[in-house]
Amino acid sequence: MSYITDPKEIEKRSFEIISQNIDETKFEKRELMIVKRVIHTTADFDFADIIKISDGAIDAGLKALKEGSTIVTDTKMVEAGINKKALKSIGASVKCYIDMPQVEELSKTYAITRSMASMVIASKDKKNKIFAIGNAPTALFKLCELVNSGEIKPYLVIGVPVGFVGAQEAKEEVKKLGIPYIITEGRKGGSTIAAAIVNALLYMIYN
Amino acid sequence: MSYITDPKEIEKRSFEIISQNIDETKFEKRELMIVKRVIHTTADFDFADIIKISDGAIDAGLKALKEGSTIVTDTKMVEAGINKKALKSIGASVKCYIDMPQVEELSKTYAITRSMASMVIASKDKKNKIFAIGNAPTALFKLCELVNSGEIKPYLVIGVPVGFVGAQEAKEEVKKLGIPYIITEGRKGGSTIAAAIVNALLYMIYN
Repeated sequence: MSYITDPKEIEKRSFEIISQNIDETKFEKRELMIVKRVIHTTADFDFADIIKISDGAIDAGLKALKEGSTIVTDTKMVEAGINKKALKSIGASVKCYIDMPQVEELSKTYAITRSMASMVIASKDKKNKIFAIGNAPTALFKLCELVNSGEIKPYLVIGVPVGFVGAQEAKEEVKKLGIPYIITEGRKGGSTIAAAIVNALLYMIYN
Repeated sequence: MSYITDPKEIEKRSFEIISQNIDETKFEKRELMIVKRVIHTTADFDFADIIKISDGAIDAGLKALKEGSTIVTDTKMVEAGINKKALKSIGASVKCYIDMPQVEELSKTYAITRSMASMVIASKDKKNKIFAIGNAPTALFKLCELVNSGEIKPYLVIGVPVGFVGAQEAKEEVKKLGIPYIITEGRKGGSTIAAAIVNALLYMIYN
């Protein structure tokens, strides 16, 4: 069987096909890089309509990355999907708190989800300037509460949890925070989408 | 803000909503568990139409898991998304070869993608009875070649790479192998989908 084996050629052709299938005039150049990378990751053109990027969100994300901030993820999958070579070259890092013993303990003590507890613990480190939530609506709700109570003020919230219970509502809460955000409206989202958005930001700096 | 924080309750309600939105009569009971878990992971009802499960694929997967086989994944994201507690309790394991030095070396020597090289290296360990490919079409093409040349005969191939170049074609090749398979027809798929399918199989044994 014959197939293209050059990853760069595969990506180039993929992005060409995506360009032919969306209205590129709807986006400014850097927004388009995010939208196209998410479609590349999902083969789902719905994302061209549901990704919402607040004014200044891309600049805020790039500022955080250039300052060597830590990106906090809700799941190990989002953490695994972020390009480590690009992160390292920029001097930024990624951290998922979900498996930490303190998270388990806090979750039991207060009868909250581990996802929620991981946000509480993460809020204590001021290096955590980007939050990328790809799976758990409860993590995003808790993050909103921590912002609203003044515990934390991230530069950027990437809020793309997926699902039928709470995901849509949690993402609507993000819009009210007054913090730069990138979200997917409605039910769709996921860990691969969160990672793709972070990687799109990384590739704006790293080549 | 108020929201449901009990993970079991969230999952239960999610599955109820999914049930209301698909034609459940199209699937036998265990197939439905796979289809619903993938929709739960993506909020994308298209998967009810594009997931194809070959005759005997579920039994083959469960046999492999019960024998304590290793599940090989193409990406760290698929590896990260598989429920480790369930795996451990069953005595099965998961392995992603992509970061291994031998893979890097083989990829350079033969000018093939690291994804392809990871399949070549993985084919040498006979404990590897399930292959779960969520991202790279080239990994799936190479796996098909290794099956066709008799290098390896897995019990089950989960072939759900995503994308615009090669993904659809690679999944069509899987159908011709004569090996039990679970695939997603067309462009859609992804690491979260591969992990969801593996987890659905795990939950048929582990509770």
